[in-house]
Amino acid sequence: MTVKASPDFAQEMPPGDDKARRVCQRCDFIDYQNPKIVAGAVVLKGTQILLCKRAIEPRKGYWTLPAGFMELGESVEDAARREAQEEALADIRIDRLLAVYSVPRIGQVQIMFRAHLDGDYGVGPESEEVKLVDWKDIPWSELAFPTVVWALTHFAETRDKEIFAPFANPPNTDALTR
Amino acid sequence: MTVKASPDFAQEMPPGDDKARRVCQRCDFIDYQNPKIVAGAVVLKGTQILLCKRAIEPRKGYWTLPAGFMELGESVEDAARREAQEEALADIRIDRLLAVYSVPRIGQVQIMFRAHLDGDYGVGPESEEVKLVDWKDIPWSELAFPTVVWALTHFAETRDKEIFAPFANPPNTDALTR
Repeated sequence: MTVKASPDFAQEMPPGDDKARRVCQRCDFIDYQNPKIVAGAVVLKGTQILLCKRAIEPRKGYWTLPAGFMELGESVEDAARREAQEEALADIRIDRLLAVYSVPRIGQVQIMFRAHLDGDYGVGPESEEVKLVDWKDIPWSELAFPTVVWALTHFAETRDKEIFAPFANPPNTDALTR
Repeated sequence: MTVKASPDFAQEMPPGDDKARRVCQRCDFIDYQNPKIVAGAVVLKGTQILLCKRAIEPRKGYWTLPAGFMELGESVEDAARREAQEEALADIRIDRLLAVYSVPRIGQVQIMFRAHLDGDYGVGPESEEVKLVDWKDIPWSELAFPTVVWALTHFAETRDKEIFAPFANPPNTDALTR
């Protein structure tokens, strides 16, 4: 017989550890929580950039880059390609690592690539709309997350560069991430 | 009253999901498992490289770079600095992102920096021994993990470069990582 109930977590310091962890008071299960990886890309077709309007929360209705949580069994590059496929039905070709952003407040590391789209694209199930935009038409005030702004801005600095050092969080942005 | 027992996980597809997850049969707790981030560094003092002999499994007694699991509340750079402090009592200055390696078989992404040591170092609790070595004295046959070999080899390619594109897994190494 299995009696089901919702988990009943409390902060406890497991033996041998040096930090409190979420421990289920029924099972003694220790829920180690680690930062999660978001993989995504600034995808170019010619000189235009691929943007997706979010069909889901958070920030439904705002524009973002194809990106999402990396899953087990993938490489970071696999994850960025899968997300472009899921959100924009786009088969992208990864060019270079653009940026590694840390958002400790929400336990995320965002790994963003510069990539190219040779073929077509469409509207995936997590998007309300997908489009290619010229730089001058980027809807800056309707972008979903600060990291989308950063990735686009950093991308612009690499436009004519084949080799570049990838970017980290811009200076003086701790108030947004910590 | 709390009756404790070990968790009792089974693979189940939660409602609305598209993958089987580990679900506790007692609590209905869903243990989403995501790739974990290892942050570390090739640390230089002058032309010498800082290596740590592992005091813990896996690969106890083998040499590695200061590196370890990123924790919640940190940036990737924070994590690399903390690990150098913990394993080699070294206060490092991060220079550039050296590499992002994916090891899907064990659900890891390893983010490695190039860094410098200005001050002293010592033997942290997870190390049996810590030393600075010349390139010619690297104990190649006694390195703990393939990614340590990769990071050192990739580092060598950047020795005289201020700006470089970071490295990913070397070609034809899927047999080691997938």
